Amino acid sequence: MNGLREDADQIIKTSIEAVLPDEAVRKALQEKFLPGRKGRAGALYVIAVGKAAWQMANAAYGYLGDKIRKGIVITKYGHVQGKIPKMICYEAGHPVPDENSFAATRAVVSLAEDLGMEDQVLFLLSGGGSALFEEPLISHAELQDITQQLLSCGADIVEINTIRKRLSAVKGGKFAKICAPARVYSIVLSDILGDPLDMIASGPVCPDSSTCAQAVGITEKYRLILSKKAGEYIRQETPKVLDNVESHIMGSVRALCAAAAGACEKLGYRPLILTDQLTCEAREAGSFLAAIARSHCNTREDLAFIAGGETVVHLTGRGKGGRNQELALGAAEGIAGLDNVAIFSVGSDGTDGPTDAAGGFCDGKTKERLTGYGIDIHDVLRQNDAYPALKRCEGLVVTGPTGTNVNDVAVLLIRGKRSDKKVNKS
Amino acid sequence: MNGLREDADQIIKTSIEAVLPDEAVRKALQEKFLPGRKGRAGALYVIAVGKAAWQMANAAYGYLGDKIRKGIVITKYGHVQGKIPKMICYEAGHPVPDENSFAATRAVVSLAEDLGMEDQVLFLLSGGGSALFEEPLISHAELQDITQQLLSCGADIVEINTIRKRLSAVKGGKFAKICAPARVYSIVLSDILGDPLDMIASGPVCPDSSTCAQAVGITEKYRLILSKKAGEYIRQETPKVLDNVESHIMGSVRALCAAAAGACEKLGYRPLILTDQLTCEAREAGSFLAAIARSHCNTREDLAFIAGGETVVHLTGRGKGGRNQELALGAAEGIAGLDNVAIFSVGSDGTDGPTDAAGGFCDGKTKERLTGYGIDIHDVLRQNDAYPALKRCEGLVVTGPTGTNVNDVAVLLIRGKRSDKKVNKS
Repeated sequence: MNGLREDADQIIKTSIEAVLPDEAVRKALQEKFLPGRKGRAGALYVIAVGKAAWQMANAAYGYLGDKIRKGIVITKYGHVQGKIPKMICYEAGHPVPDENSFAATRAVVSLAEDLGMEDQVLFLLSGGGSALFEEPLISHAELQDITQQLLSCGADIVEINTIRKRLSAVKGGKFAKICAPARVYSIVLSDILGDPLDMIASGPVCPDSSTCAQAVGITEKYRLILSKKAGEYIRQETPKVLDNVESHIMGSVRALCAAAAGACEKLGYRPLILTDQLTCEAREAGSFLAAIARSHCNTREDLAFIAGGETVVHLTGRGKGGRNQELALGAAEGIAGLDNVAIFSVGSDGTDGPTDAAGGFCDGKTKERLTGYGIDIHDVLRQNDAYPALKRCEGLVVTGPTGTNVNDVAVLLIRGKRSDKKVNKS
Repeated sequence: MNGLREDADQIIKTSIEAVLPDEAVRKALQEKFLPGRKGRAGALYVIAVGKAAWQMANAAYGYLGDKIRKGIVITKYGHVQGKIPKMICYEAGHPVPDENSFAATRAVVSLAEDLGMEDQVLFLLSGGGSALFEEPLISHAELQDITQQLLSCGADIVEINTIRKRLSAVKGGKFAKICAPARVYSIVLSDILGDPLDMIASGPVCPDSSTCAQAVGITEKYRLILSKKAGEYIRQETPKVLDNVESHIMGSVRALCAAAAGACEKLGYRPLILTDQLTCEAREAGSFLAAIARSHCNTREDLAFIAGGETVVHLTGRGKGGRNQELALGAAEGIAGLDNVAIFSVGSDGTDGPTDAAGGFCDGKTKERLTGYGIDIHDVLRQNDAYPALKRCEGLVVTGPTGTNVNDVAVLLIRGKRSDKKVNKS
């Protein structure tokens, strides 16, 4: 039997592999649909948009090869990792769209406008698509101005998206309309908790759930100043039904948690997914998991409690760290002295905050070790300086950039008291 | 079937009733031991110490009646609710001991010093006993000075208790030694998470786990200034074995959680006790429970997640509220719109913060209702002003003072989607 740290590393590896772009594309193509093999006479096009667009397009080429007539990839600057046969790769601005975003989107729209009944589009979507895939119906300057008005009025993200979908030629289901009558197969890597399809990249191929009446209501509520043209677009309804689209979310924090649960089970733990939508303060989530550990540490069976999501960190210092590192360190005090417990948390992208670590690992000895080095956990958290502290006690989790981004997963492992002998062996 | 609020009120009532002092005494006397019925020829004495001392002593008289030879009750000012036959009731200082604490403790020690082999002591202990039950071995002034030195050096509670047990005639198991050779039956209502018997009221009848060597180490670590007499007491070992004592923790946050779980089960929910040792920021615990709700709200069966403990509130405003109210309100945003979910939290003493409410209740409509009244949840939490907001939306839980204090319990209720019809009926 492994030690807790070895188990943690195994669980992390397995979980992240399950949500890699390649794996998402492979699973969708094998289990959900296989465009180009359904006897259609037309051509197959690949459109990939988002931070993981290159990996997804590359994987699609690996499976579909020359069945693809042509492809366009739009990703963030520095994210194209080489040529892909049949594909044109664009790099563009993120999180703020720039001229390259618009030019690349224009190329995609041009291609889509000419599709026929028999043609098929494999649409590969990942986080960041909202900025990378955009063709504004009004001037870029006015779009920025309206966004600014909404932000300064305190409009929430749903309100902002309701307006922006109407001022875009591709968002809110409109891109699927452009592709029609061709069929669209959409594979989605979600970086938004709860996987709301019409929010991911503002849903280019998803029926829009917001209405014109709501949009007009928002302009009145915040007394938005709009050009005549913008006012007209606000009043145009977005698609409510799209019968040429089939979408599957293949990678998400839910899948990440499910994979973590599967990995835990394989190692003999009974897994319980508490949530895949965690949003609270990182260190407090750690403290909550530690409280669960204290109440369950005399268990007979091996237990794993899993909490996925996207915690937050309110900065009070200027140290180096990330939300996953703070979550783990936030648990260290609460599990101090428990020799059968570990808590770890990792970002699926392999980059936790501005550090080269993916997250942090703490066990019952972490606090004692840090105290031995003269490091006080409360001070460290106050300074948001988890990285050096975890580095010192070998509590960093380092995976390198993974090429995916479906948020984070935290796991509490408890070895049952029955397996004490085995723990001592490790 | 009830609505969620009715279920909540039922669960709260049942949970608190299970940890009332009367119930704790009744259960201990019926299930654990019955002093005065074991054929001993000697006399039975009752010593009750703590904030719930009067209730516990009164309940003991109710069961044992004239089997009791004599009793002494030491409780907080204003907590004696009437005469109890055979008992003398003292009121004294809390949280800082005063002359009345010392005088009352002296009376107890006098009684205990004269006990014989056949005599029995029923020792009823509840929170607050540390200040109420004290006979210092050094002058009160020096004891205060040493405590002050320890606090200003940043000594932790375990270190402070290690020193104070040695400077007291009754703490750290010494009271049990005074009672010997008489037998001591101890019934404990615990207000400390994890129920460490030697911490509750500094363990008057509990073998002390700290050692002389540790105590001397602490005086050296913090360079404490001690009189010669104090220095000598620090070097005297506390009792490590007490063979005349039988202790049972009858009321504690663990029992509160277990009772909540039982009440949930009776109402058809499948209960899961996540923890009985929660210590994190109150509103973040609410957010964590809300995240669990979002991931499990499509469940088919009715679920209840239970988290007991003692959360904290870091004040950022000057409003009115308490940790249970903040926990509930901290969940409101996260469960907004879910029609089958409720989260509530209550203090078992019936007094949450400086308010007349025991806690708070929120469901999927709370946020909308507050918004309708022009109340923003974030503002409310920033002002620590949960009470008026919850009052406005009928989210206060009011029980009145309960006479017990075993910390708090928070519950997340989720109605399974199968029982939709029934929910609509309510």
